[in-house]
Amino acid sequence: MAAIAAAAGGRCEGDGERLFIGVGPLQTAGPEEVSFLDNRRYLPQLRETRAGAVVMAQGLADQVPEGTVAIVVPAPYLGFARVAALFHPAPAATPGIHPTAVIGPGATVSPEAEIGPYAVIGAGAEIGPGCIIGPHAAIGAGCVLGPRCRIHAHASLSHAILGEGVVLHPGARVGQEGFGFAPTPDGRFETMPQLGRVILGDHVEIGANACVDRGSQGDTVLGAGTRLDNLVQIGHNVRTGRGCIVVGQAGISGSTVLGDYVQVAAQAGLTGHLQIGTQARIGAQAGVMNDVAAKSDVIGSPAMPVREFWRMTARMKRLGEKQGKTE
Amino acid sequence: MAAIAAAAGGRCEGDGERLFIGVGPLQTAGPEEVSFLDNRRYLPQLRETRAGAVVMAQGLADQVPEGTVAIVVPAPYLGFARVAALFHPAPAATPGIHPTAVIGPGATVSPEAEIGPYAVIGAGAEIGPGCIIGPHAAIGAGCVLGPRCRIHAHASLSHAILGEGVVLHPGARVGQEGFGFAPTPDGRFETMPQLGRVILGDHVEIGANACVDRGSQGDTVLGAGTRLDNLVQIGHNVRTGRGCIVVGQAGISGSTVLGDYVQVAAQAGLTGHLQIGTQARIGAQAGVMNDVAAKSDVIGSPAMPVREFWRMTARMKRLGEKQGKTE
Amino acid sequence: MAAIAAAAGGRCEGDGERLFIGVGPLQTAGPEEVSFLDNRRYLPQLRETRAGAVVMAQGLADQVPEGTVAIVVPAPYLGFARVAALFHPAPAATPGIHPTAVIGPGATVSPEAEIGPYAVIGAGAEIGPGCIIGPHAAIGAGCVLGPRCRIHAHASLSHAILGEGVVLHPGARVGQEGFGFAPTPDGRFETMPQLGRVILGDHVEIGANACVDRGSQGDTVLGAGTRLDNLVQIGHNVRTGRGCIVVGQAGISGSTVLGDYVQVAAQAGLTGHLQIGTQARIGAQAGVMNDVAAKSDVIGSPAMPVREFWRMTARMKRLGEKQGKTE
Repeated sequence: MAAIAAAAGGRCEGDGERLFIGVGPLQTAGPEEVSFLDNRRYLPQLRETRAGAVVMAQGLADQVPEGTVAIVVPAPYLGFARVAALFHPAPAATPGIHPTAVIGPGATVSPEAEIGPYAVIGAGAEIGPGCIIGPHAAIGAGCVLGPRCRIHAHASLSHAILGEGVVLHPGARVGQEGFGFAPTPDGRFETMPQLGRVILGDHVEIGANACVDRGSQGDTVLGAGTRLDNLVQIGHNVRTGRGCIVVGQAGISGSTVLGDYVQVAAQAGLTGHLQIGTQARIGAQAGVMNDVAAKSDVIGSPAMPVREFWRMTARMKRLGEKQGKTE
Repeated sequence: MAAIAAAAGGRCEGDGERLFIGVGPLQTAGPEEVSFLDNRRYLPQLRETRAGAVVMAQGLADQVPEGTVAIVVPAPYLGFARVAALFHPAPAATPGIHPTAVIGPGATVSPEAEIGPYAVIGAGAEIGPGCIIGPHAAIGAGCVLGPRCRIHAHASLSHAILGEGVVLHPGARVGQEGFGFAPTPDGRFETMPQLGRVILGDHVEIGANACVDRGSQGDTVLGAGTRLDNLVQIGHNVRTGRGCIVVGQAGISGSTVLGDYVQVAAQAGLTGHLQIGTQARIGAQAGVMNDVAAKSDVIGSPAMPVREFWRMTARMKRLGEKQGKTE
Repeated sequence: MAAIAAAAGGRCEGDGERLFIGVGPLQTAGPEEVSFLDNRRYLPQLRETRAGAVVMAQGLADQVPEGTVAIVVPAPYLGFARVAALFHPAPAATPGIHPTAVIGPGATVSPEAEIGPYAVIGAGAEIGPGCIIGPHAAIGAGCVLGPRCRIHAHASLSHAILGEGVVLHPGARVGQEGFGFAPTPDGRFETMPQLGRVILGDHVEIGANACVDRGSQGDTVLGAGTRLDNLVQIGHNVRTGRGCIVVGQAGISGSTVLGDYVQVAAQAGLTGHLQIGTQARIGAQAGVMNDVAAKSDVIGSPAMPVREFWRMTARMKRLGEKQGKTE
């Protein structure tokens, strides 16, 4: 119990001697499991829970049912993540190369790495210690993977340098040619050779079926700790700072630059050649066509400051209603 | 002819003795083929068709050219689907395991299942009778597939339980980790362990390159008969009822719950933790940030009732024009 | 130098005797590299460049720093593409079939084609001379590939006929069943058999993880030179003319027809059964629900003429501000 409260970064109110075997949601967790509450919407489930302990914020501890220990922490979601990781650590590599894997000439695979069935490692690639390469993953010639990267099933990688602990989820596409071509006077298109790389900083994560194109010239760069959700599109020569978040189905066009800790919500789109300042937040489905200042929040298509968007939306609705009454 | 009319659920006006060899569109079908009309936009093609028979609704039978039989049915598209399925039944499994497939320890593959080249079946997985596992498909450890599932090329599956007749189209991603992490005070993110499963009910279909994340805690559940189109994103812990339809490139964020027969049109987005009532319809490109009542139709970003949206849109356009004239 | 200026289609102002070894961006190119300027936004980088030569338009040649040769051309981006292709020609096939590739019965593979590890070529398929089939690519039974096609890692293809020089980027899905089904009176859906093919004209390119469904009846057709970016969705029976461009994450629903040289910008969506005229341009995130005339530009959701959209947007913003002052 003390280990759990310590991992969560909090103190526990109640029986400090209990033993726990895992974690679970409020509705199904039993007396030997730890749960959490992060959203007041789920207070009814808290009052009914059979969980042995619940990680939660200060003000709600009195809502916990009898027999459940409240673990009070400043950041419940983070605290619970750490408790869950006690019971469910990230999988470690089972070193070895599956007999069906194809290792290209000159490739170096750490003896501490795990290479799955039908993985293909291209010529001259380097796979660091503790890496897990999933089934059917394709690592292109010359790619470099730092320690403890996880490349899941069917992901493909080419022209890329990965730091430590990078994760590619299934079907992620990293390093393919970007969308570059020039129209000719007679109405055809000629391909612009795509020559750059993709540089993924430490602990970058790329979601399932997300795409990160190689630079056309120069490189496409995602800063350390940046996370892309599923089906995100990153065009050539995009650069992000540290810890950026890009949520499902959002897209960032070529050569746009994000500062540190920028958040791009689901299905938003950014045109190319923009500058997005540090800690800016782009709302869901926003269409961003201009630079965004640091720490500002924009939404709408075309995007505008969040406050302006909601004021405009409210007035449009009122206008509609008023006219409706006079008709 | 009688078999075809019976399959279509209608009666035929004309020569009941003809023989047919297949189906085809109005423009190209010949005298031995069956076609259909479901959209008045294609009436000109009906008048020119050489098809031997056309499945169609009542009021249009007099537009059929001479030599073509009208098969009049209450639901032409359904009727035609059944006729086409007479000529083109869903493919059956050719039982056997391709010599290049990798079957993990403890996995059980029905002798009536077909396992394609380079398929990988993880430890302890169960593949039911009549399943077809396509080339390069990756079935994770412990997954359970009911009878007659079809897993197409390059699809990946992990932490999942599938009912009967489930279809994953090429590149579909089911069961990977969702987008869950907690920010730390020093600006990093810690991964929230993703521990749940994906439960796909009978006859669920997942489109090409669509993604369904495993539950973070609890499960992600798609009810029987639910169909996702290509490139759809389903976040962790989403739950749908029976017969929901999610069209191409739409996305549903974590923990949102859909009732039965909800329709989500193309490129729509739903934020997390919402309740969408039974038979609600979400319009194309809608941005849904609030619960939606049963049987209601919403559209727009942010979403509003369809009627309100169109009234507002019309007034915005009129307002624009009026001001234009006075300038 | 002369060869480079000739390739770029321009004339060079400066030392015609230099030798070059490659190309690079303005910021990093050295004296033996060629760079380009296509966007006035990057004029500061031009003034600082160490590049040996810069491909550029006429009016800016006087901004080139000492020691750098200006190659003045009418179309800088096209000119530079041609110079870059001198140094980086498209990769040629290394003929041969990797021993792990599976070639189905009756398939014919040109002796001049390259078949990568774990590629699967279905029964009766035809692979033309100079084709490069990447690792894990899956070519379905009966597919026909013209000369010099490049099918990258993990792409899948079925029921398809490809012209010359077609490119499928990693994870592209071509020829799978489309989203077709008919509701039954008791609330289920019955699959409409999907029977058509995909026809890709010469030099068509399909982006990473993009999807092109086979025709339901009739065929899905992309005209010569059409290019799809990553994560694009093309529904069954869509037809495009020559040289259409569809940018990342855009989607075109079933049976919509595009004329020649139509441009669809990122994240736009087109409903089904539309006619889009030649050289029409659809803006980013547009929602197109009606036919679009040739050479017209539309944007917005619902889409309207571009000029009308910007006028309406500006007035909405002014209206918002004016009311704000009176509150």
